[in-house]
Amino acid sequence: MLVGYLGPKGSFSHHVAQKAFPQDDLVPYQNITEVMKAYEAGQVDYSVVPVENSIEGSVHETLDYLFHQSEIQAVAEVIQPIKQQLLAVELGRPIEKVFSHPQAIAQGKKYIRRHFPHAQFEMTASTANAARLVAEHPDRQYAAIAPHSAADEYGLQVVARDIQEMEENYTRFWILGHHLPQLSLPQQGEKQTLALTLPDNLPGALYKALSTFAWRGIDLTKIESRPLKTALGEYFFIIDIDNGQKNLADFAFQELTSLGITYKIFGSYNVFQIPEK
Amino acid sequence: MLVGYLGPKGSFSHHVAQKAFPQDDLVPYQNITEVMKAYEAGQVDYSVVPVENSIEGSVHETLDYLFHQSEIQAVAEVIQPIKQQLLAVELGRPIEKVFSHPQAIAQGKKYIRRHFPHAQFEMTASTANAARLVAEHPDRQYAAIAPHSAADEYGLQVVARDIQEMEENYTRFWILGHHLPQLSLPQQGEKQTLALTLPDNLPGALYKALSTFAWRGIDLTKIESRPLKTALGEYFFIIDIDNGQKNLADFAFQELTSLGITYKIFGSYNVFQIPEK
Repeated sequence: MLVGYLGPKGSFSHHVAQKAFPQDDLVPYQNITEVMKAYEAGQVDYSVVPVENSIEGSVHETLDYLFHQSEIQAVAEVIQPIKQQLLAVELGRPIEKVFSHPQAIAQGKKYIRRHFPHAQFEMTASTANAARLVAEHPDRQYAAIAPHSAADEYGLQVVARDIQEMEENYTRFWILGHHLPQLSLPQQGEKQTLALTLPDNLPGALYKALSTFAWRGIDLTKIESRPLKTALGEYFFIIDIDNGQKNLADFAFQELTSLGITYKIFGSYNVFQIPEK
Repeated sequence: MLVGYLGPKGSFSHHVAQKAFPQDDLVPYQNITEVMKAYEAGQVDYSVVPVENSIEGSVHETLDYLFHQSEIQAVAEVIQPIKQQLLAVELGRPIEKVFSHPQAIAQGKKYIRRHFPHAQFEMTASTANAARLVAEHPDRQYAAIAPHSAADEYGLQVVARDIQEMEENYTRFWILGHHLPQLSLPQQGEKQTLALTLPDNLPGALYKALSTFAWRGIDLTKIESRPLKTALGEYFFIIDIDNGQKNLADFAFQELTSLGITYKIFGSYNVFQIPEK
């Protein structure tokens, strides 16, 4: 079986794909949209994409594509703890330049400033790209802030472990596909994600939409507005609901329809957690 | 009077600052956080920062800083139509490379592909940076996708006008300060923006928070969740309310407090619109 992910090798997406599909062939793509298009074109059986980070928020590229351009379904969610490592070709050498993704630099800056005050920072497109760049220049005094799996992938040494500033850092990934995959990861619960589009002519439309869930006691675990890209102040709403009360949710959907509120289901899925090391 | 904005010169922020404060001295800063810090440090009397774009959504750097790290107030909002121009040193020359911000490239790609199929794209940190780069290399076959004001600022020619793919593209800017500024721009209305933090132990807390506004007939023009940066699934909520019913809003705030919902007011402000050319 083939599984697409956001490359290059050694990225957090790669790690999630490895944990979820340890027996299968993993195929890297250059950006999130290409990972999803690969699934639509039938090039892969599943696609693994990031959806939300606990510090940065939603991954708009993923959610906007699913809303505007696609009918793909999320069939599982995998939560990956984000721990950043300082990686270099050799231990004990001075570090002149530190490469990483802007968010990982933000998380690791405090540590680097304290221990390598003369190091300069340079942005890369991803943490795995930074690790690859460091490995390709073994003669330079370079280091990367990147996941542990990137050290294994590019033969780098861990200079310092878990250097991120915030302890609580997690990313949600979705597995997109047709069939529920059998994952050998600890399961946490069951959720459903949908996008609501509200009619212009319904006063208090968002409040009414939320009411259909609230009075039935259905928990919303997330709500977020995203621009419809039509005019300033026009949004669609992404909501996550607890899937424990599936029958009640079906009634809520009927009520939404009768109010003139349209909804698009992004998926009903089990939530899995990759254990912290 | 001194006014800080997101530089360099020729950016949309610069244009907004010029329209709002035509008589004053404008000071560019390198990023949004620095624009806000300049105001806090007393280096400028007002700061102009982007808040939301109708296609891309909220500017998280602005809203997260105002929520987590600052007590600055928005005292006016200015809506700027976003129109992108193709700029070069000379008209009628071939174009080999087109520079711009990723979002402006996304908006202009269709036009460039059709008219300059051999041109390559290269990302810059901002549209104004792209224009400056083109002006600095007059011997190269370079072009920039940038606002009209960047053409004036860097002495570039407009090769093609309004090349953006989507017609409806606006950005909201906030003027941060202590006093309401007198702007000679057309006024559109009056709004208030606040951030709600919900207590853990209140079931249906978001629904209850929205109820305090809904049953009083107070219109919410926007709602958005942003991560609290503590754990996955914990959010604060940014809401915009119509400021027409100010007394009613004060009662709603009292009710929020009695429910254990905390709120932080980002500002009560008039909304101004820069006319389309």
